[in-house]
Amino acid sequence: MGALSETLTQFLIPVAALVGIGFALLQWFLVSRVKVSSHDSSNGYKAKLIEADEQEEGVDNIEVSIKCAEIQHAISVGATSFLYTEYKYLGIFMGVFAVIIFLFLGSVKGFSTKSEPCTYNQGNTCKPALANAAFSTIAFLLGALTSVLSGFLGMKIATYANARTTLEARRGVGKAFIIAFRSGAVMGFLLAANGLLVLYVSINLFKLYYGDDWEGLYESITGYGLGGSSMALFGRVGGGIYTKAADVGADLVGKVEKNIPEDDPRNPAVIADNVGDNVGDIAGMGSDLFGSYAESSCAALFVASISSFGIDHDFTAMSYPLIISSMGIVVCLITTLFATDMFEINSVSEIEPSLKRQLVISTVLMTAGIAIVSFLALPSEFTLFDFGTEKLVKNWHLFFCVAIGLWAGLVIGYVTEYYTSNAYSPVQDVADSCRTGAATNVIFGLALGYKSVIIPIFAIATSIYVSFRLAAMYGIAMAALGMLSTISTGLAIDAYGPISDNAGGIAEMAGMSHSIRQRTDALDAAGNTTAAIGKGFAIGSAALVSLALFGAYVSRAGIKSVDVLAPKVFIGLIVGAMLPYWFSAMTMKSVGSAALKMVEEVRRQFNSIPGLMEGTAKPDYANCVKISTDASLREMIPPGALVMLTPLIAGTLFGVETLAGVLAGSLVSGVQVAISASNTGGAWDNAKKYIEAGASEHAKSLGPKGSDCHKAAVIGDTIGDPLKDTSGPSLNILIKLMAVESLVFAPFFAAHGGLLFKVL
Amino acid sequence: MGALSETLTQFLIPVAALVGIGFALLQWFLVSRVKVSSHDSSNGYKAKLIEADEQEEGVDNIEVSIKCAEIQHAISVGATSFLYTEYKYLGIFMGVFAVIIFLFLGSVKGFSTKSEPCTYNQGNTCKPALANAAFSTIAFLLGALTSVLSGFLGMKIATYANARTTLEARRGVGKAFIIAFRSGAVMGFLLAANGLLVLYVSINLFKLYYGDDWEGLYESITGYGLGGSSMALFGRVGGGIYTKAADVGADLVGKVEKNIPEDDPRNPAVIADNVGDNVGDIAGMGSDLFGSYAESSCAALFVASISSFGIDHDFTAMSYPLIISSMGIVVCLITTLFATDMFEINSVSEIEPSLKRQLVISTVLMTAGIAIVSFLALPSEFTLFDFGTEKLVKNWHLFFCVAIGLWAGLVIGYVTEYYTSNAYSPVQDVADSCRTGAATNVIFGLALGYKSVIIPIFAIATSIYVSFRLAAMYGIAMAALGMLSTISTGLAIDAYGPISDNAGGIAEMAGMSHSIRQRTDALDAAGNTTAAIGKGFAIGSAALVSLALFGAYVSRAGIKSVDVLAPKVFIGLIVGAMLPYWFSAMTMKSVGSAALKMVEEVRRQFNSIPGLMEGTAKPDYANCVKISTDASLREMIPPGALVMLTPLIAGTLFGVETLAGVLAGSLVSGVQVAISASNTGGAWDNAKKYIEAGASEHAKSLGPKGSDCHKAAVIGDTIGDPLKDTSGPSLNILIKLMAVESLVFAPFFAAHGGLLFKVL
Repeated sequence: MGALSETLTQFLIPVAALVGIGFALLQWFLVSRVKVSSHDSSNGYKAKLIEADEQEEGVDNIEVSIKCAEIQHAISVGATSFLYTEYKYLGIFMGVFAVIIFLFLGSVKGFSTKSEPCTYNQGNTCKPALANAAFSTIAFLLGALTSVLSGFLGMKIATYANARTTLEARRGVGKAFIIAFRSGAVMGFLLAANGLLVLYVSINLFKLYYGDDWEGLYESITGYGLGGSSMALFGRVGGGIYTKAADVGADLVGKVEKNIPEDDPRNPAVIADNVGDNVGDIAGMGSDLFGSYAESSCAALFVASISSFGIDHDFTAMSYPLIISSMGIVVCLITTLFATDMFEINSVSEIEPSLKRQLVISTVLMTAGIAIVSFLALPSEFTLFDFGTEKLVKNWHLFFCVAIGLWAGLVIGYVTEYYTSNAYSPVQDVADSCRTGAATNVIFGLALGYKSVIIPIFAIATSIYVSFRLAAMYGIAMAALGMLSTISTGLAIDAYGPISDNAGGIAEMAGMSHSIRQRTDALDAAGNTTAAIGKGFAIGSAALVSLALFGAYVSRAGIKSVDVLAPKVFIGLIVGAMLPYWFSAMTMKSVGSAALKMVEEVRRQFNSIPGLMEGTAKPDYANCVKISTDASLREMIPPGALVMLTPLIAGTLFGVETLAGVLAGSLVSGVQVAISASNTGGAWDNAKKYIEAGASEHAKSLGPKGSDCHKAAVIGDTIGDPLKDTSGPSLNILIKLMAVESLVFAPFFAAHGGLLFKVL
Repeated sequence: MGALSETLTQFLIPVAALVGIGFALLQWFLVSRVKVSSHDSSNGYKAKLIEADEQEEGVDNIEVSIKCAEIQHAISVGATSFLYTEYKYLGIFMGVFAVIIFLFLGSVKGFSTKSEPCTYNQGNTCKPALANAAFSTIAFLLGALTSVLSGFLGMKIATYANARTTLEARRGVGKAFIIAFRSGAVMGFLLAANGLLVLYVSINLFKLYYGDDWEGLYESITGYGLGGSSMALFGRVGGGIYTKAADVGADLVGKVEKNIPEDDPRNPAVIADNVGDNVGDIAGMGSDLFGSYAESSCAALFVASISSFGIDHDFTAMSYPLIISSMGIVVCLITTLFATDMFEINSVSEIEPSLKRQLVISTVLMTAGIAIVSFLALPSEFTLFDFGTEKLVKNWHLFFCVAIGLWAGLVIGYVTEYYTSNAYSPVQDVADSCRTGAATNVIFGLALGYKSVIIPIFAIATSIYVSFRLAAMYGIAMAALGMLSTISTGLAIDAYGPISDNAGGIAEMAGMSHSIRQRTDALDAAGNTTAAIGKGFAIGSAALVSLALFGAYVSRAGIKSVDVLAPKVFIGLIVGAMLPYWFSAMTMKSVGSAALKMVEEVRRQFNSIPGLMEGTAKPDYANCVKISTDASLREMIPPGALVMLTPLIAGTLFGVETLAGVLAGSLVSGVQVAISASNTGGAWDNAKKYIEAGASEHAKSLGPKGSDCHKAAVIGDTIGDPLKDTSGPSLNILIKLMAVESLVFAPFFAAHGGLLFKVL
């Protein structure tokens, strides 16, 4: 046993979660002090207005404030109504899928209500399979609801913060940065703490029924991961199609044909574009990272439950993954203070370093945190389940597993930054290739994305090798959790991006001055890079999580080895490796078609509404919102079905070995496609921003806006949109979700799967 | 024993090879009757000129003939000089690598000259490891030389035929088609027959030393595959960079900036562009398919040698792969007559169906051929090596293995055609997306490529499953050989494309009339699709070949299973899946940089040579040829090194299991990247051609040349160039070559590999 008693563990985890929630509320309160209303022109900073310096402009202008409030309201209404409609569909899906889970898992032992001998904890009796079916279904619903809640809260916070960031930008870039960052922190802490709390409470409630049958308890809990990830899939795909249909459609007519700036209020698709940022980048990403967190926790808990922790009923050691997450909340809380209270941003060039510093600080602090938790919570020596055999492990082995995941995340973050930030040569080379037109820009951009895969893959491979050697599949699950342990900070800097993007949009639409727009643009450019870093984390952790889930699936399905040379496995492997392409083809084509519809509508409005181009008439924003909404809800179904049905079909028709091949294939292939797509898109976006900003001699020689080079860069940026915001980030959900779904259904496939081969 | 006696086998194989060579020479003779010289204005068709109809124009014009001869000469000189320079580098590489093979394999048993007990044929004595090292080295050199010879002969034929096709186009599209097709057939038959003959002779010569030690004999013969494929790699990569640097460079300045047509003689890069077609698409592809053929034969022979065929010394059954190839030559010979003698092409719309008919006829005939060979050459029942166990197989099982490979090839061919021909909706949709600009064109094109992967992968997976179930790894090797059995026809219709492309270039440069150019364009458009089909075959067969080689490697390295769950294997798998991206990044960036240099040179010439644009001064073609040559030779080294060194490093440092993972990972990931890259590029090219041809109402609404839609289509076409002609087709060599290299070095890795893990 470790030094930490069970009572203390039972106390510390919920306390950490509540501290996280409290901290999030505090940040929200601080953001809310910036008033967006027509009634209070003082903006809630009455006292400080005395210190106003030359940076402040128009802070007392009531009309601007009213206009911002109106725009914010329109965005918020659009986003809320989209999410409500989306959730209506998802509600039906959740219901249907809950029934499927119950029926499939219930059928494993023919809906028997008799207790069974345990599979791993031999000699003891475990709860009936029907109970596991029922509790898996409940866990699935809990995970799904928590995921929906996470996405929804994130969106609410972001649409609450965007106009406030715009208004603060009048007071200087540093002030605006803090508002955007605090808002990101609200989301980060709320999600992490909420995920932890629901999981903790569920385990304790399930325990009331399961008692000492931890095998069944933690088997059922895996449903939580499945619920979280399946909602995340639809959130990412639906939101991704929404945001990019609007973005691409708005750009193609506005920027390319009509030559009006981005976010110009005359563009009918501008509100839809801004709504998209909130439902895609914020709500989608929130659900995604929550899903990764839930799944890696579930994978670790499942493996632990069939290891000595579970068999010896050592609750503290069993809860090691949750304690690591609790420590993560505390570490991120301290890290946040560095950004909000200890350093002040005075110039544009300090933004990106400040965000990067967050990553480094949280990683360093968390390394110490992991050491503390590992030595207090774990016995100095214990055994872990390793595919039928037992592996002797020491507590410092687990410290290394978690730490290597954490540091691999930092490496991936830095590499992503190197390949997507316009401060370094890769993006500058891409910008330079625009001299010879869009074609070379695209060739160089694609090559950059491919190249950016190399180091992350080596980082992931090293983490896998080390953590597996030290602590088998449990080690990999903990490495994934290590990468996600600083999720609050990761989400904060990730959510910061779309909030700044929206703030810029609101500034433009409210007709604020050029210098305000420049400040929000600077925030946004840093946000592009942090968004790419966030995607890097999401993909890296997804790879580790999927492998851990894969290992858990193999254990639960009772497979002895996944031999590539068995034809059953190999065909799974090659078809699995194909799935990311199939999925990307669907999502990209969806964005393309939806964007074409948007283009037609925007053109139609420009042609049929007199005075629109002159700014004397208002466009019909609602129609564009409707096009994006309809397209995304309709188009998210086929890719969603592909991901949800593949494990069911492969497992039922071809059996557990083929499914194992499919999981391994989609994992090793999907990671590459996802990383390259995200980074290519990020690089194109920042190459365009590099030319627009014209901050160096080289950049000036390529610009200005409207030059041939710039036009070529805009084409690259538009191509990158679906790559980086729709297909790329959805792929990590594809690989995770198929793995967790296979894990949940493993007993069914093991009992009844492989029908086709049985018939032949 | 089968019905065929050893004596008859020893007679039939060389006879089939000689018939193939004879048929190739006959076709060459027929092509050569079209005279390209200033001395004979009758063009060698004196008798037929009487039948001249209205299609014939300017057949008696001597100046045109002289001009064509000049251009042909320039292209031929450029191509020959490039290949000589390339071969100089490759000669050094061959020498160095031959030494490496000898030293590595010799060291397995410490350069001992003592005979050893056999590994598989237990109880018997086999030749010393040193002899195997020496003969592997010799086989490597033979394979390399045959590959070089194949590429060189292909190029010579193509540069001999291009101007003849142009001149024949004056007499009608049907006549031109036959010349182009016959020339392709020369190459197809020469390569297939030559490959078979060299392999057959080598086996018989090696047998003089090895006698009854067939284990050692066929182990050494695998070096032939390695030699063939390593030359093919450099040929494909070097040639691919050469051709696309010139093509992209010529297009970017000529078509986009100067608005002059493709192949305009004023464009300084035009000769380099046409040279590129011959060294890239012809010589590169010839070496590539020869490599696949050599490797699948070697893989099948190796597995057979350790099965009952080898142990019972049944020479006829042992030679089954060679007899299948012999039958393939005969079948393709008959098939060719359908195109050249039985049907006549009267209009443009008949070209593509005629080429497609070739595929169908050869597949149907070959199916019967396989049945005959299987029943005559094989015993009705025998055992095959299946990873340490023996598998009982019947002769009709092998019929199905070979036939399923053959038909899977046809399916892949048809799917490729559907996705890349502008007669079907996918390419038309891509063309339609040009309405909203280059960005949507690229998004739709990428999505099309991703989607086109689905059915080929299912076809490959089915072939693998069926052939593996029926006849283990031998079945897969034979399925690969089945897909390649009609290689003569495949190569003929494949080589036909670049020849037609060149013919069009020569027509343009010689200032021939618009209608001639239209005829060659029609030939070329069909050639684009057949080129894509050829690439589909190359990739599909490469997947099967690699898997067969992989199986042979695993057997030879003495690995019991390749378990994905072993961390050693999994890290290999994920890193292997990354390699195609690394490789593509290198090759695409190479094309991009070389194209930029070409653009600068072309611009410089337009700016500094007075009268160039007006056509009164001649450009400096040689300088552009030099830029392409230098760039391709310099840039082919890093990707070549990546492929050649990876197995050596992985095997030596990480051992045989990790290397097995690398091979499986690169195989399942590389196939997807290769297919999608080839088809995306082909689709963009034909979408552009669709708009240019304006053959339907829809196409007319997008055109004409120079419209905004067309410009967007040209951008897509340019992006597709490196995808479809450099990185895509090189990838199948990557996966094959790493597999065959691992197979050759397997004894070394098994004896001395895994240094890093041993140290840790």
